[in-house]
Amino acid sequence: MTATRRPRRCRVWRGDIVIELPQHNAAFCRDHFLRYCRDQVAKTIKEFAMVEPGDRLLVAVSGGKDSLALWDIVSDLGYEADGLYVGLGIGGYSDASGQAARRFAAERGRHLVEIDLREHFGFDVGQAAEATGRVPCSACGLSKRHVFDRAALDGGYDALLTGHNLDDEAAVLFGNTLRWEVEYLARQKPVLPAGENLPRKAKPLVRLTERETAAYCVLTGIDYQVEECPMAAGNRHLQLKDALQRAEAASPGTKTAFYLGFQRKARVAFEASLADGQAHQLRQCARCGSASSNEICSFCRLRERMTTP
Amino acid sequence: MTATRRPRRCRVWRGDIVIELPQHNAAFCRDHFLRYCRDQVAKTIKEFAMVEPGDRLLVAVSGGKDSLALWDIVSDLGYEADGLYVGLGIGGYSDASGQAARRFAAERGRHLVEIDLREHFGFDVGQAAEATGRVPCSACGLSKRHVFDRAALDGGYDALLTGHNLDDEAAVLFGNTLRWEVEYLARQKPVLPAGENLPRKAKPLVRLTERETAAYCVLTGIDYQVEECPMAAGNRHLQLKDALQRAEAASPGTKTAFYLGFQRKARVAFEASLADGQAHQLRQCARCGSASSNEICSFCRLRERMTTP
Repeated sequence: MTATRRPRRCRVWRGDIVIELPQHNAAFCRDHFLRYCRDQVAKTIKEFAMVEPGDRLLVAVSGGKDSLALWDIVSDLGYEADGLYVGLGIGGYSDASGQAARRFAAERGRHLVEIDLREHFGFDVGQAAEATGRVPCSACGLSKRHVFDRAALDGGYDALLTGHNLDDEAAVLFGNTLRWEVEYLARQKPVLPAGENLPRKAKPLVRLTERETAAYCVLTGIDYQVEECPMAAGNRHLQLKDALQRAEAASPGTKTAFYLGFQRKARVAFEASLADGQAHQLRQCARCGSASSNEICSFCRLRERMTTP
Repeated sequence: MTATRRPRRCRVWRGDIVIELPQHNAAFCRDHFLRYCRDQVAKTIKEFAMVEPGDRLLVAVSGGKDSLALWDIVSDLGYEADGLYVGLGIGGYSDASGQAARRFAAERGRHLVEIDLREHFGFDVGQAAEATGRVPCSACGLSKRHVFDRAALDGGYDALLTGHNLDDEAAVLFGNTLRWEVEYLARQKPVLPAGENLPRKAKPLVRLTERETAAYCVLTGIDYQVEECPMAAGNRHLQLKDALQRAEAASPGTKTAFYLGFQRKARVAFEASLADGQAHQLRQCARCGSASSNEICSFCRLRERMTTP
């Protein structure tokens, strides 16, 4: 007996299956998958009260799959969203990243704010890492946070969105959990409210994996920067991602249950466990006016190191 | 130029190095390592107030490295400790396990209490697993808990000790954390106080890895059952152990920081987060009198299934 194998079809929208998602025990055709991605983002925005209809959003875009998918999806969901690209000066990687971000904006007639570290502040990520003697990711994160916050506040946006996906956030959570960093755990939320000199910040992709955002880009024709940052190779974050990916492969749905379970059942326990005195107190940086834990914010201290011979 | 490599010597006791422990950035000679193991157990007993000098202890022994090392160490530390061996009826594995436990007791003139599931209750672990349709580890854990508690209470011991090591406990913690099982997390302590029909229970090996308990046995000439239980192969617990072992290899000390950090900084947050109504309430099993969450305890329900045709 021979069986003729027909192409499998999506059970909902009848198109040819393009992707299987074991964690949902589901297989989707193109249109159903794109709808699924938008629904996951809409659901996340709603569950965590991230933004409201009519809000003007600034999406931090690196030119990679996550941030371009995010910009595309929130625009599709009806939000007015501009992009923000920060030039980090990481050689060919930054060149290609900037091109991807600019191309995406130009093809869709969207506004992209550009800020280049070298032009505005006189140094790039490599130089900052060398001067501080710390890993590049540290100087990079610090600089981006500063520039993102500033741009969102100066531009009068209601919220700054970043493209952190489920793999990113689950790995950060895993790292904080392995060391039981109670203060970080208490604060690890996918949305942070606006504060004195701080824009509201949100991560609407926390329900989507990096495999899903990549598939979203491929299926919608978004031409993104595929290379990972060369400076991040082998860092602890990638090892944690890898460990979680193994757990996910053994038991699909592990990452989602870990991240969303934390937000729904556990985070509040850590928040409650912090005595009032331990609550994260911020003041205003004496140099640039940004929110800071210290008199001078980390970015201004970094700038100082870069300009003092 | 040629370098003559001399055998490395322990920096404290000058003997030849027999084991390196990257998590402590240390290397030990035989005597120093054995002292280290005893110290780690003494430290654990003290930090978690597990037992007190003069207590009569019952050590659950499987014949494996952990439980025999535990029995040996607490005896060395001056406690009066009997052993308890439960015959589970797992073919050749159980035969060899029982022999190892009996040999250890006979060679050292120590008292071993023996209870055989088939003799006392008319069934073994394989039959129980088949009858319940659940994994063997479930029926096995359930039966052992019941027999351990009963034997400790009936024998008038002050505490029941089990040989769970750091790898075991960190893997259980990891599993509970991946799913944020808040109630289990609140209760995952290395010592549980005595209660109505419940003996005090403690796990004094939670600071020692399985590599360390194996080395302890080899260096002290304890002839233990090396085989792992054939019924446990490939279970989730082993996958979780493996994932943590990778994290440990990438960053030595991860397991210790994860487990002890939880006990010191995080567990209490989960305990506090449980409303009073959610606290674990136990009553007395109507059949056997053991502590139970239900009217009839799980072990009596299992027995019922095994005897009802």
